[in-house]
Amino acid sequence: MAQLLRVQNFMVSSDGIAAGEDQSFENPFGLPGADRLFSWAGATASWPNRTDPGGSRGLDDYFTRDFAHNIGAEIMGRNKFGHQRGPWTDHGWQGWWGDEPPFHTPVFVLTHHERPSITLSDTTFHFVGGKPADVLEQARKAAEGKDVRLGGGVTTVRQFLDADLVDTLHVAVAPVTFGEGLRLWDSPDELLDRFHLDVVPSSSGVVHHLFWRKQL
Amino acid sequence: MAQLLRVQNFMVSSDGIAAGEDQSFENPFGLPGADRLFSWAGATASWPNRTDPGGSRGLDDYFTRDFAHNIGAEIMGRNKFGHQRGPWTDHGWQGWWGDEPPFHTPVFVLTHHERPSITLSDTTFHFVGGKPADVLEQARKAAEGKDVRLGGGVTTVRQFLDADLVDTLHVAVAPVTFGEGLRLWDSPDELLDRFHLDVVPSSSGVVHHLFWRKQL
Repeated sequence: MAQLLRVQNFMVSSDGIAAGEDQSFENPFGLPGADRLFSWAGATASWPNRTDPGGSRGLDDYFTRDFAHNIGAEIMGRNKFGHQRGPWTDHGWQGWWGDEPPFHTPVFVLTHHERPSITLSDTTFHFVGGKPADVLEQARKAAEGKDVRLGGGVTTVRQFLDADLVDTLHVAVAPVTFGEGLRLWDSPDELLDRFHLDVVPSSSGVVHHLFWRKQL
Repeated sequence: MAQLLRVQNFMVSSDGIAAGEDQSFENPFGLPGADRLFSWAGATASWPNRTDPGGSRGLDDYFTRDFAHNIGAEIMGRNKFGHQRGPWTDHGWQGWWGDEPPFHTPVFVLTHHERPSITLSDTTFHFVGGKPADVLEQARKAAEGKDVRLGGGVTTVRQFLDADLVDTLHVAVAPVTFGEGLRLWDSPDELLDRFHLDVVPSSSGVVHHLFWRKQL
């Protein structure tokens, strides 16, 4: 069984924007009203951060509950891990997720700057440099036969798409436009030379885009 | 976390028919062209019986790969287990699935007739009588905190729906009509008093119907 590189629950606006240029501690996505990108996921029963019972169990829930299915490692960009830039000066920052991160696997954080690994509960963050293909090979080894999730952000997803390393890609397009920011695409059609695509509108207003590589 | 009773990948025709009256060893579904009910699932990458690589990884694949997600036990009707009726005369029959059944959990087969349990690889079949609520309680205990799948056939699903024990129900409606046979429903609208419903058309021609209980 092939070990896939999968993007899951990646969220963009109708105009393809996933984040703003000015991300900060106070505004991690750097966008006004970024919650409109992910409110569909928070409404589902399987959303990992859910604290109360309830939540929907229709179409959207299939996507939130598939998040960890057969995943053995994650790769994420440095900007997803935190808002620091340049050399790591604040080792007290251990990511956004507290003592129990929702990954439960090794996580490879892309960075040009060295930093020792951090273990929080059953998640270990490794800080790695190198080309996308090399990082993917490290992550595949750590995943022990399971798939690898490419966790974002948008610059990282673009980088791995440009290197033609992504096997499946789930993008949830929310009914909001931002006009300016960091774009995943101008149009999903850009990927149709390499990927099959199912377009699936949800009753929540989000339109799920499911891509899978033509040669798999 | 509640232990749900879930129906998954249950397949019916556009006129609500899941099986014919005359099921047999040669024609397990008792329908002409029953393969038109399940060809959508066989085309996916995650179909458990797949022997070659490949297969689609779009919408339909989310349903086949969710089959075992957080499932700790299955309940099935006797007619799904095999074509024998009445007392068990042929103990050589151990189900349709060979030495490696795709369940990997305890399975509770509904029957009025006693028979010793059978273990095949990591699946154990128990043969049990009693009311649906009592069988569900046994299955929940065996599932050790996980959900229970209600595996069909159609008479069994109807029986548990009538007893109001089903929490979520995924029905894949295929673009074929049979006219005569055993019906799940005259119309999906029959369940709307008790369930939310997402209706999700797939590019394969199947229309996925996702029900979840209003009070959960």
